[in-house]
Amino acid sequence: MAIHPVIMCGGAGTRLWPVSNQARPKQFHSLVSDKSVFQETVLRFAGAEGFHQQPVIISNAAYADLIARQLAEIGVTPAAILLEPEGRNTAAVAAVAARYLADAFPEGLGLLVASDHFIGRPDVFLAAVRAAAPTTGKDYITTFGIAPSRPDTGFGYIQAGAPIDGQVHKVAAFKEKPDAATAASYLASGAYSWNAGIFLFSPATMLAELAAHAPSILAHASEALERAHRDGANRFLDAAAFAATPSTSIDYAVMEHTGRAAVYAPLDCAWSDIGSWAMVGEVSSRQNTPGPILVDAPGCQVYAENGQLIALVGVEDLIVVADGNRILVTKPGRSQDVGGVVKALKERGLKDYL
Amino acid sequence: MAIHPVIMCGGAGTRLWPVSNQARPKQFHSLVSDKSVFQETVLRFAGAEGFHQQPVIISNAAYADLIARQLAEIGVTPAAILLEPEGRNTAAVAAVAARYLADAFPEGLGLLVASDHFIGRPDVFLAAVRAAAPTTGKDYITTFGIAPSRPDTGFGYIQAGAPIDGQVHKVAAFKEKPDAATAASYLASGAYSWNAGIFLFSPATMLAELAAHAPSILAHASEALERAHRDGANRFLDAAAFAATPSTSIDYAVMEHTGRAAVYAPLDCAWSDIGSWAMVGEVSSRQNTPGPILVDAPGCQVYAENGQLIALVGVEDLIVVADGNRILVTKPGRSQDVGGVVKALKERGLKDYL
Repeated sequence: MAIHPVIMCGGAGTRLWPVSNQARPKQFHSLVSDKSVFQETVLRFAGAEGFHQQPVIISNAAYADLIARQLAEIGVTPAAILLEPEGRNTAAVAAVAARYLADAFPEGLGLLVASDHFIGRPDVFLAAVRAAAPTTGKDYITTFGIAPSRPDTGFGYIQAGAPIDGQVHKVAAFKEKPDAATAASYLASGAYSWNAGIFLFSPATMLAELAAHAPSILAHASEALERAHRDGANRFLDAAAFAATPSTSIDYAVMEHTGRAAVYAPLDCAWSDIGSWAMVGEVSSRQNTPGPILVDAPGCQVYAENGQLIALVGVEDLIVVADGNRILVTKPGRSQDVGGVVKALKERGLKDYL
Repeated sequence: MAIHPVIMCGGAGTRLWPVSNQARPKQFHSLVSDKSVFQETVLRFAGAEGFHQQPVIISNAAYADLIARQLAEIGVTPAAILLEPEGRNTAAVAAVAARYLADAFPEGLGLLVASDHFIGRPDVFLAAVRAAAPTTGKDYITTFGIAPSRPDTGFGYIQAGAPIDGQVHKVAAFKEKPDAATAASYLASGAYSWNAGIFLFSPATMLAELAAHAPSILAHASEALERAHRDGANRFLDAAAFAATPSTSIDYAVMEHTGRAAVYAPLDCAWSDIGSWAMVGEVSSRQNTPGPILVDAPGCQVYAENGQLIALVGVEDLIVVADGNRILVTKPGRSQDVGGVVKALKERGLKDYL
């Protein structure tokens, strides 16, 4: 019962402007090491006991070349690269992935993971997934709840219910992003963990739950895969069928309705969604060349995408990011607001700087 | 008795890194308007009553092409461009200028000015020079004392003595850069003004005073001009003779010793030496294209040399400067320390970023 990594890399956020953009989103950049975040994600499973060594990649067709090149750089051959003509959220991704695995590896389990997250303790993560596999084999869809380290209001939370097996519990409830007081109470109770969007499932169970709770998504996504245009490892999903697939998250479509939701928690694997420049600074070991020149400038974080020389004189606790002809200056407590720059650029018609 | 502007543009400081550097110093950049500071200085005298319309330029030979190009851009024909093989400070400059004028325009007056200063009220400045011309014609070397607007410790001061004529006084004393308490007392007394390094003189008087107080400088500088290699308007000073010229300022060599030092003061012409990025911000009307993106970023000053898009999120009172692959972030109270960046770059052998 091998576990098949299914790596989602179709998204593009705005909070890591100027480095991350639509043309080359966050996951394809060397944000935290000399490899891209996507490559780090793929390599997390390389040689890992219990994991199939040919991952499934699911992304947007626009990134087909980027994916092929980055996989080649690290010498990894994918089982398949499933390419969406447009983003239709994670329920459609789960449906396509489950349908693909049901055909290609019906005896395996699928592990749906984001390509743009950091995991500082990969062995802990991999061991947790392996530990959850037997429970999952018993027709559960297992999520992984990250042990919260702070009362963060930026994540959804998972409330653990009755134990099933070891650290695997039934899910009592999925909770939306909470307000600060609620987040503090979640942290204090110990029963809540962060929803990192990681799902372990058997293809048959996922298909059955989609059929029960989201039949239209399953039908259209399946059709999109069946009619896919194949080119080597690439499978370009059928545009018409995929466009007809309702766009919603797997949480809304299935997890909040199914009686078969399990959660492995708490998972303490030094996880980060690297959702802001402040978070990049917290986890990155990447070196700038040449390094910055700091003249009486403590606590500053610098990111130079193209060898820019960044000099800081008499300032403190700043984040400075340079990419080509685009420069961002912010500070840790405000870096989550960088999306506002992208919004302003669009409003002012400055598309060349997106 | 026409007044001949003698514009010094051979220097290169470090405090306006990254824009100003040895290859193309401050005065040749469009720091405060769409013209370079040098061009603004030249054009200050264009069409001005009493001023000869062919200025004398004195600079380093390294900038010969830059000077020719920038003069051509504004349609100004120089009387001569005197080019030093190396910098030997302002006494040598005054000697070369006086010798040149004594030969070419013996009846005129010379006005020695820096090319890298800003004057916000040029008419006031020009009127002051014209007003000082009759006194200067009576064998004085007249300096111009800027009305101090703050107890600045970064300038030398001139103490005015007995009145000669109108606002022109004998110089009581030249004062070195003072400490803060002394600067405050200077400001309070009303008898002190900033030494802006501006000198009005007849060639004969300057030559006589150099002969009396700095005969070696006069002899070698004169020889360097006499042996100069001519090429169009350019006169490349003889390297051997110029190298033998002692290097010191005209203040030390002549002004502090002569009995013929006069000062026009106070001169209130909105003068600035644009000696730091904070000062650039105070006087600049230059527009960045595209302008910066400011998300909750009050009081920030941005300078993009090459059309960089600079975005500031949740920060305040910063100065951000971008030039090619070099980026500076500082703040107004610290921008005088930018020279430390140049020092650090030299120490680390990062010459490409100077």
